[in-house]
Amino acid sequence: MIRHIDAELQGLKDLALQMGDSVEKALDQACKSVLAQNKEKCSVEVREHESRINDLQMLIDESCVNVLAKQAPVAKDLRLVIAITKINTDLERMGDQSVNIVRNACDLYSAWPQATLPSQLTEMIDAVRLMVRSALDAFSRRDVELSNKVLAQDDQVDDLRDALFSEMKEKMKAGSDQVEIGLAFIMIGKNLERMADHATNIAEEVIYLATGNDVRHGHNVSVNS
Amino acid sequence: MIRHIDAELQGLKDLALQMGDSVEKALDQACKSVLAQNKEKCSVEVREHESRINDLQMLIDESCVNVLAKQAPVAKDLRLVIAITKINTDLERMGDQSVNIVRNACDLYSAWPQATLPSQLTEMIDAVRLMVRSALDAFSRRDVELSNKVLAQDDQVDDLRDALFSEMKEKMKAGSDQVEIGLAFIMIGKNLERMADHATNIAEEVIYLATGNDVRHGHNVSVNS
Repeated sequence: MIRHIDAELQGLKDLALQMGDSVEKALDQACKSVLAQNKEKCSVEVREHESRINDLQMLIDESCVNVLAKQAPVAKDLRLVIAITKINTDLERMGDQSVNIVRNACDLYSAWPQATLPSQLTEMIDAVRLMVRSALDAFSRRDVELSNKVLAQDDQVDDLRDALFSEMKEKMKAGSDQVEIGLAFIMIGKNLERMADHATNIAEEVIYLATGNDVRHGHNVSVNS
Repeated sequence: MIRHIDAELQGLKDLALQMGDSVEKALDQACKSVLAQNKEKCSVEVREHESRINDLQMLIDESCVNVLAKQAPVAKDLRLVIAITKINTDLERMGDQSVNIVRNACDLYSAWPQATLPSQLTEMIDAVRLMVRSALDAFSRRDVELSNKVLAQDDQVDDLRDALFSEMKEKMKAGSDQVEIGLAFIMIGKNLERMADHATNIAEEVIYLATGNDVRHGHNVSVNS
């Protein structure tokens, strides 16, 4: 039997995945601005995606409240609505981080067009894109195995960030003309690290959704389904 | 007539305020580690508060789901539960930032005990503490006026961060021995800026709670109460 609430829950999930799609597009353009110095075009496109992300955030929050008020969901249905409320917040922040990346890249390359991209940042970009893609796929399919992979990838991103910071500090110490450049790459690294943290939050929500286990803070609390 | 749900909602609110109290204590100790170089003691205390914050986060999330499942709240009651779910996430992140501040301060002063605290960072600490205090007071009393003050204070914190960054960059350019110190103060500034962002999120939630207006992204969407 198809319940009326199923259509509403599917509608919420579709909205969250639409928002996820916009986040991926914003991140892609932001990374392009870092990798290819494609400044103006990327900046405009990221801001367009971010505007759509912000609109979707408000629509999803309103829709979640409506489903809760009208359908009074329980058990797994309720967990889905709560998870979407939280994933919604993470996705919106990922939009903000995409804007921060493109802003930092534009400032950097406008002043120093010849700045050389550190290899750790290229690796971070690949890793974070994969994490975001995987977290959204995991949400779409309630895939616990893929969610666990996202959690493991976060450690790799943290290692890359540490390696980036070390190399940039050495460059900054070697010459005062490298201070602004090194700092800009460090800031872009921080932005990417935060994108990865949000992808991790989404993966944790998917595990909660699929299993009822709260894996945050290393805990493993089961709830009734 | 006192409704059964009122006691449950008050219980949720009390838990959130307890968590807010732990966040303030963690922030106080973190700031002390920056201002007074009181490293070891502060570090232990911040971690104790953060552990309590993490436990409360999981308890509050579980309690919110229980209230939604058992009481099926609507209108203002539902808005309160959703607001607490979101404020809960912000408070947990504020605990993380307190740990980051104390970690950055310990690393800095262990290597460079004579590092001179920039005046902008002292001002940021005062401003962010006030914002956190005000956001929690505003939540406790559903105070829209105070929430709006928090939103305005966030701009001041951003200005102080910009001034801090400028001064640190100049110092780092002036001597390679200032690179690590300047970068550590910049990172502490970033941590404080994020604390302020979370306080701003809480203030926005309070406005939504009290008025039904969603003031995020400069919008002003009314919902039915």
